[in-house]
Amino acid sequence: MPDYRFKLEFEVRDYECDLSGIVNNAVYQHYLEHARHVFLKQQGIDFADWFRRGISLVVIRMELDYLYPLRSGERFYVGINTEKVSRLRFGFKQDIYLLPDDKPVMRARVIGTSINAMGRPKLPAELEALFTSGF
Amino acid sequence: MPDYRFKLEFEVRDYECDLSGIVNNAVYQHYLEHARHVFLKQQGIDFADWFRRGISLVVIRMELDYLYPLRSGERFYVGINTEKVSRLRFGFKQDIYLLPDDKPVMRARVIGTSINAMGRPKLPAELEALFTSGF
Amino acid sequence: MPDYRFKLEFEVRDYECDLSGIVNNAVYQHYLEHARHVFLKQQGIDFADWFRRGISLVVIRMELDYLYPLRSGERFYVGINTEKVSRLRFGFKQDIYLLPDDKPVMRARVIGTSINAMGRPKLPAELEALFTSGF
Amino acid sequence: MPDYRFKLEFEVRDYECDLSGIVNNAVYQHYLEHARHVFLKQQGIDFADWFRRGISLVVIRMELDYLYPLRSGERFYVGINTEKVSRLRFGFKQDIYLLPDDKPVMRARVIGTSINAMGRPKLPAELEALFTSGF
Repeated sequence: MPDYRFKLEFEVRDYECDLSGIVNNAVYQHYLEHARHVFLKQQGIDFADWFRRGISLVVIRMELDYLYPLRSGERFYVGINTEKVSRLRFGFKQDIYLLPDDKPVMRARVIGTSINAMGRPKLPAELEALFTSGF
Repeated sequence: MPDYRFKLEFEVRDYECDLSGIVNNAVYQHYLEHARHVFLKQQGIDFADWFRRGISLVVIRMELDYLYPLRSGERFYVGINTEKVSRLRFGFKQDIYLLPDDKPVMRARVIGTSINAMGRPKLPAELEALFTSGF
Repeated sequence: MPDYRFKLEFEVRDYECDLSGIVNNAVYQHYLEHARHVFLKQQGIDFADWFRRGISLVVIRMELDYLYPLRSGERFYVGINTEKVSRLRFGFKQDIYLLPDDKPVMRARVIGTSINAMGRPKLPAELEALFTSGF
Repeated sequence: MPDYRFKLEFEVRDYECDLSGIVNNAVYQHYLEHARHVFLKQQGIDFADWFRRGISLVVIRMELDYLYPLRSGERFYVGINTEKVSRLRFGFKQDIYLLPDDKPVMRARVIGTSINAMGRPKLPAELEALFTSGF
């Protein structure tokens, strides 16, 4: 298991499970998004605040490997690492592990970029710095 | 069964059901909200557009009676009637019926008001007209 | 502010907010449901587990007063009190307060009952005890 | 634009948009899931019904390319093609296009398998047939 730059713990809520009795596939994206936003906020980048100031952080690609289906009441954490993908694109490596035994639940890669209110690429310095700083 | 000013048909989607195999309680609010917004739009009141112009339609009270639990694939409709509650408050009577046999699923009453970006009451004329016009 | 039998703390997640920039009305039901289920579990009543054993806890009526709209990142708690409503019906008084200053966010009353796999009323002794025991 | 084996039309609902005013990233998975389930049902494979009979269709990998962000009220369709990936794995190629002008919104590839209640691979003949039959 790799080291992570940031980890956030969660617990499955019953309403997140679907009729198969396991967490619905789409809900994992909510876990990943929330973990990213908390990580970014801790680094001084507030998603909601940036949006109000005209900067949108947008996902352009996502790869999700579903390894183990979470169930009601289970605890888990999302680990995050970051990578610079290209001049305008940045990546999050996000993995989910069951607690307490660290069983792998999901491996995800999320590629994003940053645009202004006109939809033009706009990478503020704080964001640039976050992805060029090593782990 | 009363006449309704507006009706909108839906079909239950699997992801709307929770681990009990029935539509999650919160999802009915999504059905009601979507039906209200489509009705309002048809009357010239676009929720998203009004928000961008600084007018928010907000719910202040909701009463929901759950009569029959919807399941995967079931078709139903939301019927809407309107009422003026007070000078600044308007009401929606929203009922849900199963199709094709009109079995009652939910009876709801939704009270709302309208505020400007400062959070002050602001009832545009179109909204006023909608709730004073009879059925 | 009344005393509560149980309190659970939450933090608004960005995906819970809708295009008006505030938590979507339906999401409050998720907060209330999650708080109820955690409270019940602490009392030895596991919603998911009971469902697998053929006992469903179902909501039959909900009254929700929306007092203050939650926003991205805000912390709050749900307080719960219980009441016996009738032989087969039990009630939860659930209130939400903003942290750290306890500003009232929502007042809710949730009436439920308990049924078996055939849809017949079935109130197990643990549930009976929970609602007859005083605060 | 390729031909599709199946198409399903949707309209964005306001509650599906997040605080950036666009459809939340996770919601696209709901669109894709619903389109798959309707397609499968039309082919005689009812997800909810199979689950009750002990067969779960599970997603093991998803690749999502976000090309254009959907907004309140926009209409779109999901097109589906199928592919056999390996003996036990099947794939859905799912693309989303804006209406009426067919602007590409999302390109997705979803890999799934089918398991029994014990979590063992179990590919019923109907499913096998669906993915080996050509377009």
